[in-house]
Amino acid sequence: MKNGGHDDTTRSDLDKKTINVIESIAKQVRADIDSGELPNIELPVRSLDNVKYEEAKGYFELGSARKLRTLTVNTARSFAQTLRVMATSRTMVQNDDFATKREVYYISKNWGDCRFDEQTESDAIIDDIEALASMHGLSREQLRVYPESHGGSVAGRLIVVDRNPATGDVIEIDCSNLGSGAYSIPRSVEHLSFRTDARFVLAIETGGMFQRLNNHRFWEIARCIIVEMAGVPTRATRRFIRLLSDKQKLPVYCFVDCDPYGFTNIYRTLKVGSGNAAQINRFLCVPQARFLGVTPRDIVDFGLQDATHPLTATDIKRAQDALRNDPFIRAQPEWIAAIKQLLQMGVRAEQQALAKWGLNYVIDDYLPRKLADEGSFLP
Amino acid sequence: MKNGGHDDTTRSDLDKKTINVIESIAKQVRADIDSGELPNIELPVRSLDNVKYEEAKGYFELGSARKLRTLTVNTARSFAQTLRVMATSRTMVQNDDFATKREVYYISKNWGDCRFDEQTESDAIIDDIEALASMHGLSREQLRVYPESHGGSVAGRLIVVDRNPATGDVIEIDCSNLGSGAYSIPRSVEHLSFRTDARFVLAIETGGMFQRLNNHRFWEIARCIIVEMAGVPTRATRRFIRLLSDKQKLPVYCFVDCDPYGFTNIYRTLKVGSGNAAQINRFLCVPQARFLGVTPRDIVDFGLQDATHPLTATDIKRAQDALRNDPFIRAQPEWIAAIKQLLQMGVRAEQQALAKWGLNYVIDDYLPRKLADEGSFLP
Repeated sequence: MKNGGHDDTTRSDLDKKTINVIESIAKQVRADIDSGELPNIELPVRSLDNVKYEEAKGYFELGSARKLRTLTVNTARSFAQTLRVMATSRTMVQNDDFATKREVYYISKNWGDCRFDEQTESDAIIDDIEALASMHGLSREQLRVYPESHGGSVAGRLIVVDRNPATGDVIEIDCSNLGSGAYSIPRSVEHLSFRTDARFVLAIETGGMFQRLNNHRFWEIARCIIVEMAGVPTRATRRFIRLLSDKQKLPVYCFVDCDPYGFTNIYRTLKVGSGNAAQINRFLCVPQARFLGVTPRDIVDFGLQDATHPLTATDIKRAQDALRNDPFIRAQPEWIAAIKQLLQMGVRAEQQALAKWGLNYVIDDYLPRKLADEGSFLP
Repeated sequence: MKNGGHDDTTRSDLDKKTINVIESIAKQVRADIDSGELPNIELPVRSLDNVKYEEAKGYFELGSARKLRTLTVNTARSFAQTLRVMATSRTMVQNDDFATKREVYYISKNWGDCRFDEQTESDAIIDDIEALASMHGLSREQLRVYPESHGGSVAGRLIVVDRNPATGDVIEIDCSNLGSGAYSIPRSVEHLSFRTDARFVLAIETGGMFQRLNNHRFWEIARCIIVEMAGVPTRATRRFIRLLSDKQKLPVYCFVDCDPYGFTNIYRTLKVGSGNAAQINRFLCVPQARFLGVTPRDIVDFGLQDATHPLTATDIKRAQDALRNDPFIRAQPEWIAAIKQLLQMGVRAEQQALAKWGLNYVIDDYLPRKLADEGSFLP
């Protein structure tokens, strides 16, 4: 395990660690008070100034800058709120429960003067605690604050191993036996384990393409697992792909539209995360991901020219920004060349453009040809 | 079966009917040409002028106005496109395949002068054919044009019966055995059947609430099936709930935020559909749905006053529009009273506001009390 996460640890070990982190911070605060000092909590600075792109690790990471939340007359409320949110996390770990950010906000309504007036206040404090926990190798899901959005859908040669929360009995979900439906990734996946004989994970941008590959059981022939991202992947989808890839040592191939949004928003978010939320990248990004297509070269190689659309002004701006400012793109000569080629061609192509050659050209021709030539993938 | 749909027919019967409808239209066109007349196709008018709210049926329906698409010099292209899209549907039925609207657009790239220049053109023609098919009791999914968005997630006391598209073997998906995950509804559900001992379907607005009820296996105790709508439900979610409710004669209870958006967008779309797409309501709306909560009265009965937010200007406008113009609301004195009460209180409440009394108050108190008093549901 190179890139953070917690592969070989069991759920209860992680729960113990979470409680230890919370209690050690609380004990320090208590000790300060007992010895007559003003207590403080050291928190990572979350602003963009304190984010760096780690080329070796392959993702954006928080730097070493720290801020002190010291108990003063002015900070009494936010200091107390920080402690109460941490106490709420501890209770949720103990009760095997969880809350969304919005629920945490509402829980505070019974905290008297400590209550949050707006959810933006509670969100900011949760983000602070998340950043703090990340320094200890713990994700927000481990603190039991789950995202609102569920993950994408999954089908293919995969057995997800979960448990019945009431009885603790093991539950095995066979993702090759869900018909035209699929497995919907839960909001937290930390407790899942996997069994699979798949050769790779295929992460797909659009729902329609996912349904096509699922109905035609592409995953059976290609021996893979397919995951629907439905645009920029949610936290749960990213964490699921990351854990699955780490635990099963599976490569991850991305099948996305050929446009600047697909490259720099969807794919880049999956692979390296974002600078805006660097505290979470070590858990959520998938550095092992590669870009299968649609590449600018595919437009030529697969004769899609008359199924393209002109780049919009937004597309062009996004591409130029990436070339100028995106540390991930700038570190990859192949991406620089691909984006320059797209700008020069002046067009974009959706993954559905392959339907020009027939609905199942993507299954019968495109994907087999691409998979036989991994060297053509972008990094 | 009162409200459209096709309960007792098998998949292949419906496929035959679809092909018959397409071929009978084509034969008429051919007969016109052979007899030297200008061929034409009669299509329902889809504008709002031709939509009426059927109180007895409980949904918005297309009226009797028809337009003729006649072959002339000016209409040659759209006439030919209409026929080619219908031919594409026939081929997809025959091959047990499907396409999204976007894929239909791309397929046309090989149609020479018939090709669509923009997806809006192909979408309009697909909507016309959908309206035509609806007159014969056939949904767009039956024409094999599937939506892009998947359905919501499902868990609970339900076995979904699907089949392996390659072998035809029956596949049974036990939605009570998916752990913290769920069953992701596929884009078309026409071929599904069900087995269940549930007493009702609970349709839930937010993903976080769905995860809470799923993790705590609320569906086990309450003997129900829970469905995540994640905001305004998609086509697939609506059709799934409708078919499940029709086939298993299950009531549908909606658990939604207490605000005008929840009432008039989320709940109303599920129950009566929309005027803008009246050709699809007979398949997609769920007239048997009732509104469990959160009702304006719940804010008082469950002491949520200090966990509310003031109504925004948009909320107020939406509520007033509903009282003035929405035929569904205007036909229901209880809804009129509820919306007036909300306007008078001047606040809205999210379903998460119940967390004020503890994270699982919703499971231990709110839902049991509401379910014991169905008379308090709104129509």
